[in-house]
Amino acid sequence: MNLSIITYFLGWVMAIEGVLMVLPCIIAVIYRETSGFYIAGVSLFCMIVGWLMAHKRPRVTIFYAKEGFVAVSLSWIVLSLFGAMPFYLSREIPVFENALFEVISGFTTTGASILSDVEALSNCMLMWRSFTHWIGGMGVLVFILAVLPLAGGYNIHIMRAESPGPSVGKLVPKVKATAKILYLIYFSLTVAQLIILLLCRMPWFDSLCISVGTAGTGGFGILNASCGAYTTVQQAVITIFMILFGVNFNAYYLMLIRKPKDAFASEEVRAYLGIILASILLITWNIRGSFGSIFMAFHHAAFQVASIITTSGFSTVDFDLWPSFSKTILVILMFVGACAGSTGGGIKISRIVMAAKTVKKELRSLIHPRSIKILKFEGKPIEHTVLRSLNTYLITYMIIFALSVLVISLDNLDPTTNFTAVAATLNNIGPGLNQVGPTCNFDLFSPFSKYILMFDMLAGRLELFPMLLLFSPRTWMKE
Amino acid sequence: MNLSIITYFLGWVMAIEGVLMVLPCIIAVIYRETSGFYIAGVSLFCMIVGWLMAHKRPRVTIFYAKEGFVAVSLSWIVLSLFGAMPFYLSREIPVFENALFEVISGFTTTGASILSDVEALSNCMLMWRSFTHWIGGMGVLVFILAVLPLAGGYNIHIMRAESPGPSVGKLVPKVKATAKILYLIYFSLTVAQLIILLLCRMPWFDSLCISVGTAGTGGFGILNASCGAYTTVQQAVITIFMILFGVNFNAYYLMLIRKPKDAFASEEVRAYLGIILASILLITWNIRGSFGSIFMAFHHAAFQVASIITTSGFSTVDFDLWPSFSKTILVILMFVGACAGSTGGGIKISRIVMAAKTVKKELRSLIHPRSIKILKFEGKPIEHTVLRSLNTYLITYMIIFALSVLVISLDNLDPTTNFTAVAATLNNIGPGLNQVGPTCNFDLFSPFSKYILMFDMLAGRLELFPMLLLFSPRTWMKE
Repeated sequence: MNLSIITYFLGWVMAIEGVLMVLPCIIAVIYRETSGFYIAGVSLFCMIVGWLMAHKRPRVTIFYAKEGFVAVSLSWIVLSLFGAMPFYLSREIPVFENALFEVISGFTTTGASILSDVEALSNCMLMWRSFTHWIGGMGVLVFILAVLPLAGGYNIHIMRAESPGPSVGKLVPKVKATAKILYLIYFSLTVAQLIILLLCRMPWFDSLCISVGTAGTGGFGILNASCGAYTTVQQAVITIFMILFGVNFNAYYLMLIRKPKDAFASEEVRAYLGIILASILLITWNIRGSFGSIFMAFHHAAFQVASIITTSGFSTVDFDLWPSFSKTILVILMFVGACAGSTGGGIKISRIVMAAKTVKKELRSLIHPRSIKILKFEGKPIEHTVLRSLNTYLITYMIIFALSVLVISLDNLDPTTNFTAVAATLNNIGPGLNQVGPTCNFDLFSPFSKYILMFDMLAGRLELFPMLLLFSPRTWMKE
Repeated sequence: MNLSIITYFLGWVMAIEGVLMVLPCIIAVIYRETSGFYIAGVSLFCMIVGWLMAHKRPRVTIFYAKEGFVAVSLSWIVLSLFGAMPFYLSREIPVFENALFEVISGFTTTGASILSDVEALSNCMLMWRSFTHWIGGMGVLVFILAVLPLAGGYNIHIMRAESPGPSVGKLVPKVKATAKILYLIYFSLTVAQLIILLLCRMPWFDSLCISVGTAGTGGFGILNASCGAYTTVQQAVITIFMILFGVNFNAYYLMLIRKPKDAFASEEVRAYLGIILASILLITWNIRGSFGSIFMAFHHAAFQVASIITTSGFSTVDFDLWPSFSKTILVILMFVGACAGSTGGGIKISRIVMAAKTVKKELRSLIHPRSIKILKFEGKPIEHTVLRSLNTYLITYMIIFALSVLVISLDNLDPTTNFTAVAATLNNIGPGLNQVGPTCNFDLFSPFSKYILMFDMLAGRLELFPMLLLFSPRTWMKE
């Protein structure tokens, strides 16, 4: 294990976190909030310690797979520990595990909260809370790759470990260039949403927090009613941007280099939009009686479907009160998730499409045992290793899911609450059903269960394996 | 499609069903019940029509994979349709879909009932209801293979389609001999249980019904309290036999041919017993407060764990009232299921063990990308095709599961009821939680949902694919 490179990396992570905390500090200055001092203090500490750790470049800057995984999972833990400090030190979230839960929920773009009264937080804390979504959405390590002078072609290990999806397509041959393009798309879309929300007369502070929250497909609102207090037009804008941030960023890149045809030909994007449309129509039909007009039913169905499939977790109404059929669709969408290569979580559309194709192929081969058909995805044959890792991913996913539900059931809450709490955290969504529904929060769990759910959020964000490897003795053994 | 061979097969299925109905007729004579006439009538009808269909052997008796699957799924449907007739014609279950549900639940060894008052049925009907478990447990087609003079080595397709588990090990080179050995073990174990229960002073009619129900890992009780009315010793006997019938029958064969060492070396059997022990201990600890002594807590935990993991579904107490932790263990066991090659349902221990091994291998290969390790199960390398069909099975399983929950949620029952109703039927268990808990029944579902659950029971019993292929247009297309 090359510890010096990991230390170097963690130093950079801390330093960058320190720099990013300047934004909430500015908010504190604007609103003249004294709690801003805590953020400033943590920011300064992170910058100094980070500089001390990272000022000397290690001699060997080559990453192997193992170091890549460890660096990524440790980075996210360090990021969360220091990210929680402003909440904890300012006593705005006085219990440590709650502050940690909240900030992990932020960085992993989950949006599950332990706060019953969000509006009691100061504006600078609200800004930091929503901003963590934006930071975590694209991945802070991808950011480091974009700016850091690291040698070797091994950086792809980092990117693989942190990027959502079954396989990272390098857009351009260099990892560094790919990372820069991704951040450019991410930043531009966020700014676009911010401007449109401002044009729709949303207050600027709300616009800023909601935009960064939507971009990361996070879901922290700054009002107790989540997005319920905004106008229909503002909600519609958020709906559209949630869907946009759930699209595979490759599609945007293809549009940027003027290949829109290829972008629209993407099987994953088509499946994604198809599932969204079908779900909205089914739910609209199911809830048509609860709203004044079919249009409002459609509006709220669209908002909720977009919010859940992209794993954002904003809400306009309490969908826990909807009929079972609509709730079941939403729960299924929780697992489906957004496109690979987007900021969304869940199992990912590409995995679902590939899995469905393997079933179709199996059925065909049962009828015609000698037929040979090659599975294709996005026009290319699916490699054997991709299928294998897809299957291990799904199995690992189920094991983590079942064990998490089992352990948190020690708190003796009802089955639906336990099941959807794990679904909402492992898929980085936010709200579940029953006692963790959109109008409730996660504070009812014991500290132990909260740590389990924190693990689930991190495991879900990092595609399971980096977190598991961190706890595997083999990782730490000498060769 | 070779239709003549399928007709021939279905004829045999009907004729055998007619013969098997003689047992409940005898019960009717003993108890002088007039409803026995309905059974006798259906029995006679089945025998005559069956003889007409099967009296002429088709010229070509070779089965291809496709015919195998179609023959198996159609046989089970025919079996169920005529099996339901006595209940329906005698008006003891006056609604047709309820009679069909009850008998499919019987043949698939599920044990889910739509009856709120079991004791209202006549004894001959109770006997037929429990006897369907025994018939379905080992599979009626395997029985036909044991007695029918069919040519060719293709009969293995039938056996593969009907036997529970990822791969059928032929015990001896000939399919016919294998089928005979399996039936011999099955029959002997059933008689052993019957004798022991009689020795424990259980009434003879109860002993008979419970023995055939345990053997098929079915779960229909003949009292409203399921097994709650029996003595502790009698319950303990049932516990032990449930566990015995969940063991891979290969292990018994190895003992028969005096290789007990090999039988105990079986990875699957060890994992099965290990999971049972761990679950019993955890539940005993969790429910220790609810019973007078730790012994009684252990007793009921053991009964319930054995009942659920073997997918029998008998109950001694209302485990829906147990704490969440215990209920979660039971729900997880519902999916795990018994050993392959037993009469139990669920995903099967061997699949779970193999799946867990692939995850372990993947974790290792992430740390050491160049390491090569061959996956082994029961001492032999796992073939690539076995792993592939394991994965397609799991994916298909999840798709059927999710779609079933979605469709039955149209009845607007609560999520736990919907989720566990599908879990209890697709895994052939019987009771679920909440409104389908051990003290409740499945009558609250709409007719449409009942048909979905019937499909799930059949799909679960036949390992998914035969039922799916029946509804695939490709199966019926001409080549």
